[in-house]
Amino acid sequence: MKHYTSINNIDNIEDWIEDAKALKTNPLKHIDLGKNKTLGLLFFNSSLRTRLSTQKAALNLGMNPIVMNVSGDAWGLEFEDGTVMNGNTAEHIKEAAAVVSQYCDIIAVRAFPTLTDKAKDESEQVMNAFMEYASVPIVNMESATGHPLQGLTDALTISEHATKAKPKVVLSWAPHIKPLPHAVANSFTQAMQKMDVEFVIANPEGYDLNPEITGDTPIYHNQEEAFKDADFVYTKNWSSYEDYGKVVNTDPNWMITKEKLGNAKFMHCLPVRRNVVVEDAVLDSDSSIVIEQANNRTYAAQLVLKKLLENI
Amino acid sequence: MKHYTSINNIDNIEDWIEDAKALKTNPLKHIDLGKNKTLGLLFFNSSLRTRLSTQKAALNLGMNPIVMNVSGDAWGLEFEDGTVMNGNTAEHIKEAAAVVSQYCDIIAVRAFPTLTDKAKDESEQVMNAFMEYASVPIVNMESATGHPLQGLTDALTISEHATKAKPKVVLSWAPHIKPLPHAVANSFTQAMQKMDVEFVIANPEGYDLNPEITGDTPIYHNQEEAFKDADFVYTKNWSSYEDYGKVVNTDPNWMITKEKLGNAKFMHCLPVRRNVVVEDAVLDSDSSIVIEQANNRTYAAQLVLKKLLENI
Amino acid sequence: MKHYTSINNIDNIEDWIEDAKALKTNPLKHIDLGKNKTLGLLFFNSSLRTRLSTQKAALNLGMNPIVMNVSGDAWGLEFEDGTVMNGNTAEHIKEAAAVVSQYCDIIAVRAFPTLTDKAKDESEQVMNAFMEYASVPIVNMESATGHPLQGLTDALTISEHATKAKPKVVLSWAPHIKPLPHAVANSFTQAMQKMDVEFVIANPEGYDLNPEITGDTPIYHNQEEAFKDADFVYTKNWSSYEDYGKVVNTDPNWMITKEKLGNAKFMHCLPVRRNVVVEDAVLDSDSSIVIEQANNRTYAAQLVLKKLLENI
Repeated sequence: MKHYTSINNIDNIEDWIEDAKALKTNPLKHIDLGKNKTLGLLFFNSSLRTRLSTQKAALNLGMNPIVMNVSGDAWGLEFEDGTVMNGNTAEHIKEAAAVVSQYCDIIAVRAFPTLTDKAKDESEQVMNAFMEYASVPIVNMESATGHPLQGLTDALTISEHATKAKPKVVLSWAPHIKPLPHAVANSFTQAMQKMDVEFVIANPEGYDLNPEITGDTPIYHNQEEAFKDADFVYTKNWSSYEDYGKVVNTDPNWMITKEKLGNAKFMHCLPVRRNVVVEDAVLDSDSSIVIEQANNRTYAAQLVLKKLLENI
Repeated sequence: MKHYTSINNIDNIEDWIEDAKALKTNPLKHIDLGKNKTLGLLFFNSSLRTRLSTQKAALNLGMNPIVMNVSGDAWGLEFEDGTVMNGNTAEHIKEAAAVVSQYCDIIAVRAFPTLTDKAKDESEQVMNAFMEYASVPIVNMESATGHPLQGLTDALTISEHATKAKPKVVLSWAPHIKPLPHAVANSFTQAMQKMDVEFVIANPEGYDLNPEITGDTPIYHNQEEAFKDADFVYTKNWSSYEDYGKVVNTDPNWMITKEKLGNAKFMHCLPVRRNVVVEDAVLDSDSSIVIEQANNRTYAAQLVLKKLLENI
Repeated sequence: MKHYTSINNIDNIEDWIEDAKALKTNPLKHIDLGKNKTLGLLFFNSSLRTRLSTQKAALNLGMNPIVMNVSGDAWGLEFEDGTVMNGNTAEHIKEAAAVVSQYCDIIAVRAFPTLTDKAKDESEQVMNAFMEYASVPIVNMESATGHPLQGLTDALTISEHATKAKPKVVLSWAPHIKPLPHAVANSFTQAMQKMDVEFVIANPEGYDLNPEITGDTPIYHNQEEAFKDADFVYTKNWSSYEDYGKVVNTDPNWMITKEKLGNAKFMHCLPVRRNVVVEDAVLDSDSSIVIEQANNRTYAAQLVLKKLLENI
């Protein structure tokens, strides 16, 4: 594996989950692996879990993390080829990626979608530019269309909490006031498709995810039907994919309640808006495993960094 | 001690001062204590001394500091219970505090008061929420009503510079153009009340601090009278407590001058506005011990972190 | 050497270049030199290369870097003497520099010029204030009139890529839409004047640099003439020095092209605006050594830090 930018980079998800569990049991076992190696964390967007857990993962491997808020600490980067750069961008990604590669042994990047230009977002311009122009491995800390550190985390969490073979996992859309990216939902879908689970998606009409990603996964437009006998309900809002980036539905009936949840475990990548996406009663109950999910972010990131370090 | 959020967490201030002096003599003695432990520093507000000295203290104990400007690096947090979060806050403190606890062994928090809502400020909403929802020790890096790292620093500094038993210490209000918090004045008052000193407060009428904090401490509205035979003059502006958060007096006659100071040592937590709060002649003289005070911030923080680490 | 704030601090540039090459060959050789020492990096302005490479250099020496965006993380600093500080600045440099010196063993500072007040910029108010009031060594990470870490980097890069004794080096102005500082051009000029090279400068009329810096260096107002038989073309925009801080010429004929460059190597400190300062064909060719230049930033900074650490 040269880079980790997609769930598709995982060759065997069951093996990866076992490896992540081993790291969780003994996080400091490989503290010498990253000694005197630097992880550059470049943020084009806000972050809390990813920012902290990826640094923690790097520290567990003995690496030195260096964090940069690209826009605030530096300046606007140009991603288009052949531009006459007489506008707002002061440096081309060709130089920026090559330069950061001089100082960092691995580069982790967060860059959200525009949610206004579907073609541009699907081209994964930023992540692909880093892969093309950097000379070191790239880690996706959430890009326009994927959040594979989260997807790996979620697979690990489900594996830990499953109480039977082939549990039923539902990815359910929930309402939100702002247009949100599809990245988490996409990577979760891809991760579940690789696992031995019964996986279905529930979302209102007009909110089907990219069909190239959902593939054969059953999609229900009736939440109640989808939740029947669910073992895990993974909740996430996303904006419309068809009417790209738009909020076309805020129906509060899609909010997750204790009653709907039944005996299923509640999962969410966080941050989550209480009493909009999910009611307090769910988050404050034992059915919620969102904090353990957040904890697992460290070991997913640590596994990815470990694999990349072993390959340098 | 589970958390350090108030001067009241200090059981025996004389013992703590001796411990801090020992750390100052040999700052790296406990460099293995915090090995592979992480200190998360969360800033809701600006900081210079606290930001640097607390990191330095953590490094002296072998810890890995991770710094976050919460609002700039992440997003607005919700502190109210039961809210329908369809506004400007994207994550509830219940999740945020629990999540950060997954990555950090100790969490240090700076969160200033509103200075408009006395009841809210006195409820110490942010600090208390972190204590309630985090699963790791919390350190107060200045909250709505207290700055106990500064208070401990100040006690250490007075102990170092005292030339006689039971020195006279004056906390004097001084003018400022902006409404400032009461946190430093409160924690200094509480620290002095625990020490074997003669402690009095000088402030204009309308500027008495919270009587629950000042208690039996003599309050003078005549600065000259208060300064008589003073060994230490600790200066700090604060906004009115009675007319909460208002600037009701900017009388330049309350500015500290060399003449007023006499033989007393001048102290201030910094930052200080020159020739508004205190004249140049004081700060530039040997009577000022403000830089040594700032130096002691490291050892106060280091003692607190050491005590918390020993208790984990 | 007490501080490193100017190319003039370099006693023998050939010796320094040899030392930097040795560090590049074995970057971790002195990993114990900076152990438990802290480098404070204070940014008054944006940075990418300097921010990352100086941290990397510190890490290579075993130091702990602590980064601060002064304005964003703290508040405005006052640099004037004797001011009544009732305006926008909350702390005087006298306190700030002395205080940061309590927590950091070396302080590195970036502070750009106003480009509106020539006298103020030439007084190097910020850098000189840090040197005066800090009690630890100061490193210039680009000040109003100099960028000596870049100048040392450039000397190293030219030494590495020279294929003959006394190569011809041209510093060429190129167009840009914004008024830029003279710092890089000044320090490059000073570095070349110390090296055994044939050094000339090319810029349009009205763009001559400070004559006290250019001294006897030949200045051409005809770019083609200057480029004749050049081995290195170092390109950089700067605003007018005579009509201080103004953009008085944006003539695209001064842009660097493959044709103009001939067999010369292309250098630039970056960031660079493509197809404004230099055409894509140059940057994307083997003639460009800008990435290697960026790489050398680490070793120039590391040499400076090493020399300062050895002197503490």
